Amino acid sequence: MTAVTAYTLGELAALLGLPLQGEAGTVITGIATLAKAGPGQLSFFHNNRYFPDLLATKASAVIIHPDSASACPTATLLAANPYAAYARVSRLFGRPNSQATGIHATAIVHPTAIVAASASLGAHVCIGANTVVEEQVIIGPNSVIGDDCFIGKDSWLSANTTLYHGVTLGSRVRIHSAAVLGSDGFGFASDGKRHEKIEQLGGVRVGDDVEIGAATTIDRGALDDTVIEEGVKIDNQVQIAHNVRIGSNSIICGCSAIAGSSVIGKNCIIAGAVGVINHVSICDGVTVTAMSLVNQSITEPGIYSSGTGLDKASNWKKNIVRFRQLDDIWKKLLRLEK
Amino acid sequence: MTAVTAYTLGELAALLGLPLQGEAGTVITGIATLAKAGPGQLSFFHNNRYFPDLLATKASAVIIHPDSASACPTATLLAANPYAAYARVSRLFGRPNSQATGIHATAIVHPTAIVAASASLGAHVCIGANTVVEEQVIIGPNSVIGDDCFIGKDSWLSANTTLYHGVTLGSRVRIHSAAVLGSDGFGFASDGKRHEKIEQLGGVRVGDDVEIGAATTIDRGALDDTVIEEGVKIDNQVQIAHNVRIGSNSIICGCSAIAGSSVIGKNCIIAGAVGVINHVSICDGVTVTAMSLVNQSITEPGIYSSGTGLDKASNWKKNIVRFRQLDDIWKKLLRLEK
Amino acid sequence: MTAVTAYTLGELAALLGLPLQGEAGTVITGIATLAKAGPGQLSFFHNNRYFPDLLATKASAVIIHPDSASACPTATLLAANPYAAYARVSRLFGRPNSQATGIHATAIVHPTAIVAASASLGAHVCIGANTVVEEQVIIGPNSVIGDDCFIGKDSWLSANTTLYHGVTLGSRVRIHSAAVLGSDGFGFASDGKRHEKIEQLGGVRVGDDVEIGAATTIDRGALDDTVIEEGVKIDNQVQIAHNVRIGSNSIICGCSAIAGSSVIGKNCIIAGAVGVINHVSICDGVTVTAMSLVNQSITEPGIYSSGTGLDKASNWKKNIVRFRQLDDIWKKLLRLEK
Repeated sequence: MTAVTAYTLGELAALLGLPLQGEAGTVITGIATLAKAGPGQLSFFHNNRYFPDLLATKASAVIIHPDSASACPTATLLAANPYAAYARVSRLFGRPNSQATGIHATAIVHPTAIVAASASLGAHVCIGANTVVEEQVIIGPNSVIGDDCFIGKDSWLSANTTLYHGVTLGSRVRIHSAAVLGSDGFGFASDGKRHEKIEQLGGVRVGDDVEIGAATTIDRGALDDTVIEEGVKIDNQVQIAHNVRIGSNSIICGCSAIAGSSVIGKNCIIAGAVGVINHVSICDGVTVTAMSLVNQSITEPGIYSSGTGLDKASNWKKNIVRFRQLDDIWKKLLRLEK
Repeated sequence: MTAVTAYTLGELAALLGLPLQGEAGTVITGIATLAKAGPGQLSFFHNNRYFPDLLATKASAVIIHPDSASACPTATLLAANPYAAYARVSRLFGRPNSQATGIHATAIVHPTAIVAASASLGAHVCIGANTVVEEQVIIGPNSVIGDDCFIGKDSWLSANTTLYHGVTLGSRVRIHSAAVLGSDGFGFASDGKRHEKIEQLGGVRVGDDVEIGAATTIDRGALDDTVIEEGVKIDNQVQIAHNVRIGSNSIICGCSAIAGSSVIGKNCIIAGAVGVINHVSICDGVTVTAMSLVNQSITEPGIYSSGTGLDKASNWKKNIVRFRQLDDIWKKLLRLEK
Repeated sequence: MTAVTAYTLGELAALLGLPLQGEAGTVITGIATLAKAGPGQLSFFHNNRYFPDLLATKASAVIIHPDSASACPTATLLAANPYAAYARVSRLFGRPNSQATGIHATAIVHPTAIVAASASLGAHVCIGANTVVEEQVIIGPNSVIGDDCFIGKDSWLSANTTLYHGVTLGSRVRIHSAAVLGSDGFGFASDGKRHEKIEQLGGVRVGDDVEIGAATTIDRGALDDTVIEEGVKIDNQVQIAHNVRIGSNSIICGCSAIAGSSVIGKNCIIAGAVGVINHVSICDGVTVTAMSLVNQSITEPGIYSSGTGLDKASNWKKNIVRFRQLDDIWKKLLRLEK
């Protein structure tokens, strides 16, 4: 039904620039883990935890570090960083986009929008006034792009994505389904009774090579733009509030929430379900572990955490009572010391 | 305006297989709580907390355990498990789907897709190449189904749902709006500077009788499939990362996040806003309480928790200072004991 | 490309009802922060933190409290509450909706639906049977509205929004993209093995002047309605379960989750990523700080918190070990005291 992608080992060695030990004519039709790979499949070894799987693998070839190659029972492609080589080879076996080039008959494109000839707009896509869609861009079915947007070349937006007006994407940006960019920041001026809406007049700017996960939301700025710098990777269901800036190449894992006007540095790793309160700064090179709350600025690179460890609920219930007495415990202890 | 669903008590007794104490001809047009029900409405009693409501109910009939029936001031339907009987009767009063059978004129179906005659595709639905839609399936308006999907019979996808390519659903699967299945797993090979995307070559497999809530996201696997076994119920805004497996009949409540390659056993209950880090296993029969972080594998059935109890912020602020000194407190205490 | 919005300072003073100190003829074309504003831009001063920016501002005019006006190097608009005045002026510079009035040719409107002449339905919008869309309502492209809904006048739903059947919105309700209202509550009757679905027979009722963020989900009630009272503001990615009631003018920040049947009072502030377990009540005037878990009812107004403070992971790892011994620490301490 589906055409099979196939390469010989010799072709893969040439495409990846890796030395081959084995039969160059062997045909490879897919990638699998060491444990699951069979004949015709390529695998990779990058973690000693899988050493027993390496010894027993049925793969036709393995991407492996030269130091470990002697243990491999089959053909090898030698790589200094086997995991990175796997990333590159995975793209050779990636599914080509099946959406036809051009504008689907049911898409609604504003007359002032500019859509490159090599772009592909799926069924029922809507493109607003003055929006620019560059070469090779793919926009999946039922996506809606507002007015005055810019979608850089080779970007790919999956089905049911929404961009409000004034959202700018760099090149090679990947956005997954149900993501929303440019929704109003959550800004109100409250007099204690009513909440007066503050119109959100900024936009959203996304750099080159950014990936944004499914159902992730990025609000537009109140006055300035919300900014996602180049190379940032954002997982699913992440919330990024107005005026936030995420530094280049940082990683934000699933379900994290970054509150308004906070700044995250470059090369940070924000693990899953982390909260960052508003108006804080996190310097470059910070890692925050899963489900921590960043309730103050971080000025020194390193690993940060909050929360308690997991426990049986029966113990936990006793300990949380004592947590509420911790300051008393401290004072009692100081008295005893005297 | 809307047609009213009506049954006599005798009909309900027969349909549910429950003994009736009362007038078989009484007409029932709806279900309500004991406190709110009026004439023509059916209620149920399953929790002693509502005993005063039972005594005062104006319902025309009550589903009740035989042991409590004597306290009921009105007709009764006797059930060993009144709550389960309520579930069954609720379905008799459920709103029938109003979407017409067949393919809406505005739907875009790939010529190689196979859509059963009794299926219903709403307005602007898109169906990809080679996808199979079985009998009685309902797909709500503006939903997008990718290539090579399989949607088992009697499944129901609400409006604005997205399935990427290669997603397989069993029979009687219910998916709510804005849910996304098959988005790319969050996989990159990082050299410390750039993050090379790892193409996500697996799919998503969902068993029979699974329910998936609104805005829930389930990523496709990196090499193998992400798997949701039969009977699993997943609430809204849950994130399930690549290569996760959820065992049969487990329940995942709203806003929980299950990180990559983790395995959850059968008959587990994961309460709301729980985080499960990557590469851990949770055995069968585990309950995790709300907003806990599972940061290690769980090998023994039981109830697990993390976090601190809620407190007034004024106390809490003092105690979190001491939390950061807990190890010092411990050491001080050991010194004092000596 | 885009028309520029412009007012003279004299016009702004009149529209806002604020005394002007400066040249009435100065033209203002936008709003910016004190630090970024240039000639032709208006700014505002509401927080002493920005006093240095005030002294150096290049703005053409500043909205400011009379007590601080003497420090301002440029024209002033005097306001008792400068932040509220900024909210009002922001709306003068807000982007007018560009979607044409009327029903787009590709929208699918059920013959029994009633759509006001001044309403605007975008491309591919679907409107169900018996649904009423009042005057001046805007519904963005690719949104789906079910049967028996009511959308009050001046409401605005962005692209890709979903309303199931039986959802009622007041006037001036603002809903952002990918939000879902009326999805099934998460209700099952479990016999320990299977989970029998409980049909969700209630609806969702939303009061006047409510704002609902992108990708927020609000489930329909099991028997009664889920209710959001007037003036409530809900941020992105919030989950509101069945039968919840949110009191008027409360604020729910991003990524919070309110479990089934819980009641939140009026004028509450629920910060980001907060969890509220099911069947609890929170009285009026409560603030819950970010990422806290409300695991019991709150009967007294005030500020409430849970969690531990952020710490370096190396310290944190030692302290969470001691957290699991807290009850032992307490007992040890009591023994020592004796």
